[in-house]
This record gives sequence, C-alpha cells and structure tokens, in this order.
Amino acid sequence: MSGIDQAAGGIDRAARLALAHLVEPGSRELGLLVRGVGAPEALILALHGVGVTEAFAGAVRARLNAAGIGPGTGSADAWGELVARTLADTMTERAGQLGARIVTATDDEWPRAVDDLTRVSREGADALRRDTDPPLCLWVRGPVRLGEALERSVSIVGARAMTGYGQFVASELAFGLAERGWAVVSGGALGVDVTAHRGALGAGGVTCAVLACGIDQVYPVSNSAVFERIAEEGILLTEWPPGTRPHKTRFLTRNRVIAAATRGTVMVEAGSRSGARNTLGYARRLERSAMVVPGPITSAMSVGCHVELRTPGTVLVTRVDEIVEEVGRLGELADPIHGEERPEDALDAVQARVLDAVAPRTVRSAEEIAALAGVAGRDARRSLPVLEQHGFIVRADGGYRLAPRPRS
Amino acid sequence: MSGIDQAAGGIDRAARLALAHLVEPGSRELGLLVRGVGAPEALILALHGVGVTEAFAGAVRARLNAAGIGPGTGSADAWGELVARTLADTMTERAGQLGARIVTATDDEWPRAVDDLTRVSREGADALRRDTDPPLCLWVRGPVRLGEALERSVSIVGARAMTGYGQFVASELAFGLAERGWAVVSGGALGVDVTAHRGALGAGGVTCAVLACGIDQVYPVSNSAVFERIAEEGILLTEWPPGTRPHKTRFLTRNRVIAAATRGTVMVEAGSRSGARNTLGYARRLERSAMVVPGPITSAMSVGCHVELRTPGTVLVTRVDEIVEEVGRLGELADPIHGEERPEDALDAVQARVLDAVAPRTVRSAEEIAALAGVAGRDARRSLPVLEQHGFIVRADGGYRLAPRPRS
Repeated sequence: MSGIDQAAGGIDRAARLALAHLVEPGSRELGLLVRGVGAPEALILALHGVGVTEAFAGAVRARLNAAGIGPGTGSADAWGELVARTLADTMTERAGQLGARIVTATDDEWPRAVDDLTRVSREGADALRRDTDPPLCLWVRGPVRLGEALERSVSIVGARAMTGYGQFVASELAFGLAERGWAVVSGGALGVDVTAHRGALGAGGVTCAVLACGIDQVYPVSNSAVFERIAEEGILLTEWPPGTRPHKTRFLTRNRVIAAATRGTVMVEAGSRSGARNTLGYARRLERSAMVVPGPITSAMSVGCHVELRTPGTVLVTRVDEIVEEVGRLGELADPIHGEERPEDALDAVQARVLDAVAPRTVRSAEEIAALAGVAGRDARRSLPVLEQHGFIVRADGGYRLAPRPRS
Repeated sequence: MSGIDQAAGGIDRAARLALAHLVEPGSRELGLLVRGVGAPEALILALHGVGVTEAFAGAVRARLNAAGIGPGTGSADAWGELVARTLADTMTERAGQLGARIVTATDDEWPRAVDDLTRVSREGADALRRDTDPPLCLWVRGPVRLGEALERSVSIVGARAMTGYGQFVASELAFGLAERGWAVVSGGALGVDVTAHRGALGAGGVTCAVLACGIDQVYPVSNSAVFERIAEEGILLTEWPPGTRPHKTRFLTRNRVIAAATRGTVMVEAGSRSGARNTLGYARRLERSAMVVPGPITSAMSVGCHVELRTPGTVLVTRVDEIVEEVGRLGELADPIHGEERPEDALDAVQARVLDAVAPRTVRSAEEIAALAGVAGRDARRSLPVLEQHGFIVRADGGYRLAPRPRS
C-alpha cells in the first residue's frame, strides 16, 4: 500500500502540473473538480470531456492539440497517467533549464494562504467576469522558501504612472517593512510595484514579484535587472507556464494571488481605473487588511485611493507602524502620534482660564483676573501662586503679569 | 395673565443676557439651573449663591464687582429683576452702538441646533477639561437671519499655518458649497478659516464667522477687512460680550458652537495639535458629519487629518459633491467617480481573453488563439467575428491580428 500511496502522491503532483498546463489559471470549474475527485481523476475527466462543460472540454482540447498530444488509445486511467507524466516531465525539465522550481499544494513550501481564494471563488460575484480559484501550481525562482516568507508578508501595489510622491511613499514603506522582517510582495510592474521591490531589496529584505506571464518572460523589459536581483535574493513567482505572455486579463487574474498570499495589501497612488484597486478589492473580500495611503486630492494619481478610502473596510495608513499594527500579531501596535508636549498641557481647566486672563504687560489684580476669567476670586487666588511657581506668570506691583518668554 | 406672561418673556430674555454677562459661556452648572428653574430664577440663585457651588457663586460675585454692582438690598426677586434689567439694558445699548443684535433662545432667529450641545455636556467626558453647554445668548452682526442660514450650513476648519495645498482646497470647497446655497461657517482665524470665509464670499454666498471674543474685537487684526465684509453680507457671531479678549480656552469653548450650529464639519489641513481637531471631535460627538480632506502623508499639516481619518466615524471627502451627500437631504448624492469608459469594457470574459491572445503583428489562427487564451476552439471562433465587427481585430491570411490603433 505504501508503494501505491507514494505513486498516488507522485501522480497527484504530476496531474496538478498537467492541469496547470492545460487550463488557464483560476478556473473555478477545475478547482471544484480537483477538490471533489482529486487531481488525477480531474485530469482524466478533463481529457475525456466527461462531467465538465463543453467550453471547458474544448479549451483543454485546444491546449492538448497545441502541445501535439493526440487523443488517447489505451484505458482512460492509462491515458491520464501518460498525459500527466509527459506534461509534468516537460514542465519539470523546463523549470530546471530556467533555474526555477514548481511548487504545488502537495509540497511543504506551498503558501496555504492562497487556498483562501476558494472563498472568493465560491461567492461567485466575480464569476462572470473573472476566474478566481486558487492557483494549482506556482513556478518559483529564488533562494527563499515560499510559504515561510509569505507568512509574514505585505503587498504594496499602485499606479504604473506614479508621481514623485508615490515613488517616495512606496519606497519608504517597502524599506521600512523589509527592515522589520516583512516580505514585500508586488506585481513587478513599472511605477509603484518596482519601487516597492527596490525598497525592500535596499533594506536587505525579502521581496516577491508575482508575475502575470511565464517565469522566462521579462515584462516589462526595463525591470529586467530588478527581476534578476529578486531571483537571486527573493522570490519570482507565477502560476503561468514558461512561454506565456502577459495580458490584461492575466494581470487581473494574477492580482488575486498578490492579495491572497499576503496578510494585507497597501495601495499607494492609484488612478480611478488602476488595476491596484482590483487587488485591494480581493484583499477586502479575502478579509485581509485593505490599506490605502492617501494623497493630495488635487492629484489624479490619488483619486482611486480616495474612492477606496470612502469604501467601508478600508484602513488609511501613513506609516510602517500603522501597517504592522494592521497585519502584525497582537502587541505590534503603532505609537500614537503625539504633538509636542507643552507645559500648559498640565494645567487644570480653572488654572488654564486664569492663565488666559493674565496679560503680558498690563498688571492685573487677582480680583480683576477672576472677573475676566469668569472664576471665583478664591479660585484665582489659589491658582495664581501655582502659575507663578511654574514660571508662567510673575508677581508685579499689586498683581500679576505673564512671565517674559525666552525668544526662540 | 397675558400681561404677566409678556413680562415673564421679557424678564426671561433679560435674565439670559445678564447671566451671559456674569458667567463664562458653556457652564454646565448654569445650563442645568436655567433648564431646571428658568433663567430669572437661575439668576436669583446665582446672585445669592444659593443652590450653586461656591466656585460658581464666587465667579458671579467677581463679575458683579467688576461691573460695579453691589449686593442687593430689596427682596431677592426685586434684586434679580434689577440686575437683569440693568445688565440687559447695558448690553442692548452696547449692541446698538456696535451695529449688532443679541439673539437668545427666546427669539425666532435662535439656531436651535446649538441646543444639541446639552447632549455633549451631559456626557460629562469633557466636563473636567472644558464647559460645553449651549450658549445662552449670541451677539450677531450682519443682514442674514441666523437660524435659517445655519439650517443649511457646513463648517470648514483647519490649520492657521496652512500650506498652498490647504489654501487651494479650503477655497475650492467653500466656493462650491456657497454656490450650491450652503452657508460656510468657520472661526475667522488665519489660514484655513479665513480662506473658507473668502471662498464663500467670492461665490456671493453666506458665510458665518464664529468668534472667540467680543463682537467689537478684531482678532486677528489682519482679517479686519474680511470681518467687515462678513458683517455686511453674512454673519459675525459670538457668545462673549463686547470687550472680551480672545484666549486659548475661549477658542476651544467656541469650537463647540461651530460644530453644533452646522450640519457637518470639514477639516482641511491640521497639524497633530490643531484646534480644528477639537471642532471635529465635537461634530462627531454631536452626531454631525465629521469630514476630513486628506493630503500628502509627507505634509506635517495633514498629520492631524490622517489621525482623524483613522478614527471610526470620520468620512473622507475630496469634492463638494461628497460633502453635500453627507449633509444634504436624501437624494443629494455625489456622482460616483468613473474612469474613462473604454470599448473593451463591454466585452465578456471569454471575448476579453480571446482578444488578449490576438497579437498586433503575428497572424494567428482561431485554433492557436484558443490554445493561448485557454478557451475552447468553438468559443474562439464565436468571439473572433464579434471582435472583428467592433474593430478590435482584423482578418489576415488564415487568421487574425489586432487592428491598428489610431495614433494619439
């Protein structure tokens, strides 16, 4: 039995790899199938077009044809195993050539947080627009173990067309989070994404770029040097097999992984149509922390941020402390912002009113001060020596005036 | 009886004026007394120090002495009426000299909204720090009827040391609100306050400055021209009798009226210690709308804004529309912010995926496109003519490529 179990474990992983090759990521139909009957059986059903929709079966056939795999001849099981092994071997070999590894839910390194996507997928709200099931497998480059790094991670996302303000903010937050041992996840795009990756690298921290294309694709080309550094020090990640080109719909599908893999998403600058808003929406629906950095209301690049901040369930953040308070464990609380303490802060209400009634130059009696302050004479006579003792006021001919302030 | 009633109405108003002269505004002790036994009886108790604390009685005595009014000789009632008439006559005469009028709860013009302050006062949370009872009377200059104008009013408050950003925002919002028939209320201070007043005046609207000093005081002096314009076209307002100098504690006491008199408070730029935060806090506790305009997180003048925006019950606003939606009647809803509509928005999920798999130059067959998109061949063959018909793609030798885009 243990031999069979091992074989089943092996075939399970191989079937996941094959399915990931044959079906565009996020498919709820496939996810339900795999969760229902297991990956090997799901592959067999998919190959035979049994128990699946015609559209699904057709899509699998199109990819099979493109891969040069003809219809099976032996038993359904044998054909399933053959396709699984063939595609898995091809993928594993290709991964090796690219210095990458393939991680699936059968591996220790798998980031279990992404499986929460079944929740969003179940809602079905987005079903017509986009597939949101968890990834079946992830292509990974980089020395860092995936699951552990993502357990303490935050994503920073935002506009490609960021302003100098967005660049400053993304860089500061990413640097600060990395300094505190948080992995910074983003999408490897121009603008806020790459700035966040660079900020984390600059702090010697871990950063993870979740791509919307094959791990062998360099997109955008201008980020190639950063991608290489990430592959050396952090994590390059994608659910698409090598050779897959990035496309608009893939960016949107990819965003769900950025939101799900991290403890929270921070949006830094976003126009009204920014894809970053899509990521933030996933974070909210996944009950991750959905955080937004505000900006000037005069900036088109903050319009999306402010719309999101007007949506319930969004948290405004301005500092690394506040982000860590949101996503960290109990006790990682941000210090409240205090203004500079002033000596007057220690006065009680009556003393404050009495002090307010003492003039800088005119000398006033305790009685005059009481009347001006609207307090009893006795209260004034009690407060004045205290105020004198603390250096707020000085005694003068028959009364009091304010102590001269040292010039700054 | 009707003669006596009229006399009672007259003496009630006179007693309120006298009490407003003798007791610093906001006193919860006085407010309870007036609500309990009426203003004339409250004055008698205050004058005799009966049923009031020693501090309260002492404060009244100090003001009586300062006003040159000695202890009474006749009956308690007669003395009370004498003090009421004397002080009321003095105040009324002084108001006339200053081109002002005095408004109390016995007058039609009284803005009833300020009476909600009894709620805040009742909480007692602030009791040790500050008195928050409603005003007893208001000194008013300007041609506009108080109650009606404030029924449709919003306050705009913020830092004295505003930046160019704060100036732009305060001016735009005040102008826009005034244009839509909303009175703009503020505190007449430098910075955001005076910018808001000017913005409303610029739109030919009503603006109301709530002062923390006598109506005869010009503070700050540099705003004197604006105060004169407000007195000519809007409302200058204060609860302090003429001659009263502005003081720090009075600014804070005054803030409760700005919050209570309006339907909501908008904070534009505030440092961490800004007094505007105090006004916003009153608005929140009064269940008025507490609105804040965000700014760059790099600006010290927005730190207070962002701290408030992280406090539950605060609404982020960026446009006049959003303010009106908060404070207006049902149906005054802000238009949602839409990005520019794009033709691709009308595509369904399959069509969008198919379109993404069509290349700009390389001609691809329907089968290749299906495999790349991860859809069935039939779905690709169905979608491609639709995409062609809408001008997204063009037919080429044995396949399709993207339609050339007009250069912008």
